[in-house]
Amino acid sequence: MRIAVDGMGGDNAPHDIVKGCVEALEDSELEIYLIGKSEILKKELKKYTFDENKINVVNADEVIENTDKPVRAIKRKKNASMVVGFDMLKDDQVDAFISAGNTGAILAGSLLKVGRIEGIDRPAITTVYPTKKDVSLLVDAGANSECKPRNLLEFSIMASVYSKYVLDKENPSVGLVNIGEESSKGTSMIKETYEVLKNSHINFYGNVEGRELPEGVVDIIVCDGFVGNVILKLTEGVAKTITDILKKELSGSLLSKLGTLFMLPALKSFKKKLDYTEYGGAPFLGVKKPVIKAHGSSNAKAIKNAVKKAKVFAQSGVIDTIGKEIERIGVERDGK
Amino acid sequence: MRIAVDGMGGDNAPHDIVKGCVEALEDSELEIYLIGKSEILKKELKKYTFDENKINVVNADEVIENTDKPVRAIKRKKNASMVVGFDMLKDDQVDAFISAGNTGAILAGSLLKVGRIEGIDRPAITTVYPTKKDVSLLVDAGANSECKPRNLLEFSIMASVYSKYVLDKENPSVGLVNIGEESSKGTSMIKETYEVLKNSHINFYGNVEGRELPEGVVDIIVCDGFVGNVILKLTEGVAKTITDILKKELSGSLLSKLGTLFMLPALKSFKKKLDYTEYGGAPFLGVKKPVIKAHGSSNAKAIKNAVKKAKVFAQSGVIDTIGKEIERIGVERDGK
Repeated sequence: MRIAVDGMGGDNAPHDIVKGCVEALEDSELEIYLIGKSEILKKELKKYTFDENKINVVNADEVIENTDKPVRAIKRKKNASMVVGFDMLKDDQVDAFISAGNTGAILAGSLLKVGRIEGIDRPAITTVYPTKKDVSLLVDAGANSECKPRNLLEFSIMASVYSKYVLDKENPSVGLVNIGEESSKGTSMIKETYEVLKNSHINFYGNVEGRELPEGVVDIIVCDGFVGNVILKLTEGVAKTITDILKKELSGSLLSKLGTLFMLPALKSFKKKLDYTEYGGAPFLGVKKPVIKAHGSSNAKAIKNAVKKAKVFAQSGVIDTIGKEIERIGVERDGK
Repeated sequence: MRIAVDGMGGDNAPHDIVKGCVEALEDSELEIYLIGKSEILKKELKKYTFDENKINVVNADEVIENTDKPVRAIKRKKNASMVVGFDMLKDDQVDAFISAGNTGAILAGSLLKVGRIEGIDRPAITTVYPTKKDVSLLVDAGANSECKPRNLLEFSIMASVYSKYVLDKENPSVGLVNIGEESSKGTSMIKETYEVLKNSHINFYGNVEGRELPEGVVDIIVCDGFVGNVILKLTEGVAKTITDILKKELSGSLLSKLGTLFMLPALKSFKKKLDYTEYGGAPFLGVKKPVIKAHGSSNAKAIKNAVKKAKVFAQSGVIDTIGKEIERIGVERDGK
């Protein structure tokens, strides 16, 4: 399985990207194409001992920065690590592509270089959302701020397929983020979406409120990318603030300090649950080939897990199945 | 100061409503009008010892349920406790009105019975949002799912006045909820709002992301009622889930049990911070008289605090000042 990795994207590039790629080689079926300024990447690689046949450095002299305008950057920086990665994916030189770089540019590259699955209006970022029970999938996590009911139906179908094939969930349930249980709640777009999802063949649970999301009442959380992005970042913020408050309270007295000592295992296991580095990046669903967006502040572990997840994604048949499901919906739509 | 309280609204009515009213009498300047089925309310009141001149029971035979359609209920259930409360407020028989009942009906009653402040397009629910530092105000917390930039400007102005007069914050900062720092982020409505707020006379901080809200980076968090409702409920859900996970982890081992014992003071102080009953309900800003929505599951303490907050609100001059600010904006708009 050949995985291309953008060696220059993300806050901790290239150091953590390179380290994560080396660590991913614990899976002997992986062959990695590490893309970026070859001199720098090779220097980083020299720090580690590994099977040199398994990591191929591909030179790319330019870098797409977070401040770059996405479409413009993809079109003009032809020798950027991200663009080279997309070209390799498009030309079947690799089976999947991972980048921790500029999210807008990854979206633009996916659309311009790889293209959408036929019948899909808008691809979406599908990310793991840790819950009390297990994990849910959240879609869209920020690619599309403004959505139509059709888009949310497509997101639901794509995430259902991914959930089944990659996360092994049989008949995953889909919840629509809303401000009340009743179908009469929310904006006109959301009310219309409720009807569309109810009449589709997905396993529609109904509306879910903000309060229910961390409980894990549904396998898939569907919303537009604006709301999805607020949900993701707010969850992160609330968790961080609570940990900070607890730590501060605990630093007060000797008794509390003893408490911390005893609490450590619980806090550790809890932090692990919220740790995005465990989950291996977010797939861009709706494009013709496997593209994975790794968290901008990915460390080596996050990259290692993203590479491993990319392999599962590429092997899963998710993309073909999404194509067939969308085609079937199209036929159903036209048949009505 | 005469405060009318809906004795039949909310999950814990009438018991906790009555108890909360009695407890609020610790402030000797308060005179309470408790509205509902007088037989039931009087029976509840008999449980307590208090100055009987200070609580007047006003009979109202009907109740607006949470399942009632708001506008219809306000128009048809003329003898419902909520409707009688709004009538008393409208006729200047009381200085403020509090209900923990059907939110939509409180909004409908506010608009139909009391009316909007001149120049205000849409009133909003303004609620306290606990943060690491202190508290912020969140507006709109759920009255208006779909908003225009004009509405968000009005929310910002109203909350700025409330924050200054009731929460004693000089020149409060206003943050616009968005999915990135840059003014180019978000939906077209949000981008337009950014420009409107930037060019207004409020103390505009810029965009705030979900991650920053619990940190307390701004005094006022502005968003449409859909996003606001998701933010409120999700914050509640994440906090609850984290506490549940910690408790579960802690129940595992003897060491952890000892830890809990030591942690108790910290956990308690942290829970108090997140406890909505401390903050005394959410004002409906934009209507001509003080209306306060208490949390649906308000207990006695929440009602007591809501009554006390209603007094501050009624005495504050917030409503007059909002009227003047909006008039000034109108003049500025026309002058341009």
